[in-house]
Amino acid sequence: MPDVYYVNGRFTEPESAVVSVEDRGFLFGDGVYEVLRAYGQHIFRIDEHLERLSGSLNAINISYSDITELKSLIFEALNRSGYADALIYVQITRGIAKRSHVPAKGMQPTVVIIVYKTPILPEELFRKGAKAILYPDIRWAKCYIKTLQLLPNTMALTQANAESAIEAIMHKNGIITECGSSNVFIVKNNRVKTHPADETILHGVSRKTVLEILQSQSVTVLEEEFTIQELLQSDEVFITNTLVEVMPITKIDDKPVADGNPGQVTLIAMDEFRQLTGCNMNLC
Amino acid sequence: MPDVYYVNGRFTEPESAVVSVEDRGFLFGDGVYEVLRAYGQHIFRIDEHLERLSGSLNAINISYSDITELKSLIFEALNRSGYADALIYVQITRGIAKRSHVPAKGMQPTVVIIVYKTPILPEELFRKGAKAILYPDIRWAKCYIKTLQLLPNTMALTQANAESAIEAIMHKNGIITECGSSNVFIVKNNRVKTHPADETILHGVSRKTVLEILQSQSVTVLEEEFTIQELLQSDEVFITNTLVEVMPITKIDDKPVADGNPGQVTLIAMDEFRQLTGCNMNLC
Repeated sequence: MPDVYYVNGRFTEPESAVVSVEDRGFLFGDGVYEVLRAYGQHIFRIDEHLERLSGSLNAINISYSDITELKSLIFEALNRSGYADALIYVQITRGIAKRSHVPAKGMQPTVVIIVYKTPILPEELFRKGAKAILYPDIRWAKCYIKTLQLLPNTMALTQANAESAIEAIMHKNGIITECGSSNVFIVKNNRVKTHPADETILHGVSRKTVLEILQSQSVTVLEEEFTIQELLQSDEVFITNTLVEVMPITKIDDKPVADGNPGQVTLIAMDEFRQLTGCNMNLC
Repeated sequence: MPDVYYVNGRFTEPESAVVSVEDRGFLFGDGVYEVLRAYGQHIFRIDEHLERLSGSLNAINISYSDITELKSLIFEALNRSGYADALIYVQITRGIAKRSHVPAKGMQPTVVIIVYKTPILPEELFRKGAKAILYPDIRWAKCYIKTLQLLPNTMALTQANAESAIEAIMHKNGIITECGSSNVFIVKNNRVKTHPADETILHGVSRKTVLEILQSQSVTVLEEEFTIQELLQSDEVFITNTLVEVMPITKIDDKPVADGNPGQVTLIAMDEFRQLTGCNMNLC
């Protein structure tokens, strides 16, 4: 079955899934998005994603309040795809107007939904762990808003890919913030640290899920800043996002993390996450 | 006559000027742009704009080398418009692919050209000067690349507009960088200062033009950082970009700059710029 495309009120063939060149998403990156995941046709934490989307819309003053209708559309899109396991991409931009930095009044937001089949990641990445690189965090100051200001993220991930790494762990003023498209956690002496959910990082739904999992397992978790040096001297490092859920990082640049194997806390987080989603070994 | 739209190889009606929702410009802001200006069908400093565009493309590794063909297309677009005085918007994105931060190989860049009639700005803004506001510079670290990472700029200019100001003068760590869509200059004791052309500001073609004008007039110009305080204690403040050329700023937030009138250096820069373009009183 093919991927499903929805643009502004209609489901359409991929080649007709188009927007005006004067859409502010295209001209200014003036929009927000979410990536949701369906497991066996069940969408994981859809309400949390939609709540974050509302927050992003509010943060940049895009007037779109049809979240209930959007939720129906997301379910309809998933159903039309026929996919059991899918990534659902939702993007809302401010709308279309003659190019001017100051938005025109009364614009209609542009709504796009795309349903992709979830790519299968090699299970080895989870069993043996993956490589990440260090990369400077050159992004803007409001990374908690899930906007289309993603060029620096694509640059970081392109560099990671060129170095056969799965992620770019970003740092600003010596502090680790997050990765190109995931949050990052470290473990040292059975204590877990991840960057506080302030304005400089995306407040990941998977990040929050993992915090809940670890707390339920009585693991000490600190939402605290940590340095590059702390990262490199960790016992364990793992990343979280909607696609990977939890993935061990066992190599940073060319150095192994601890003994180079996924650690116990990481494995707990990974296993418990899979329990929650009902997804075993990344094959639902 | 109507505005002219060109997208990927063809001139088209506005309603057919569309791009795929999977264009990386729309999904990631993964593209660059230029705004050129025609005066009496002559395009001002087109080669400088195209050279900067090449630099922007190189900086983010978009493979597009048809600058000579692009130049012909720009002239053709202007001719088709029939406008004597026009703003020519050129945008090139990395192209279209299934959404993934890491770009697919072998993508064809998307090329968009739009020709708008130059809006007429009230001459009073030039005679009496305009208001600007102060706004934090929350942008990313690579503002010298003219990319689509423009949401913070639109936020700054939206706030300026809400306060009946023409621009937002941005500051980072107490230093004035530039404005939402223009460069900014200050004058104190007949010495002119503007932020150095490093990675934190856009290297404006109009900025460079004004530097040349002032040097030819034996005015002392320093490309040096200056503080918010220096700005507020200036004798003169002016901004430069392709649309305004040179515009006096005589009010910042609610305080007048010096006596609240445009100063001598500003008037020289403004008049000489108009000599260069052959455009008098913003009416060509």
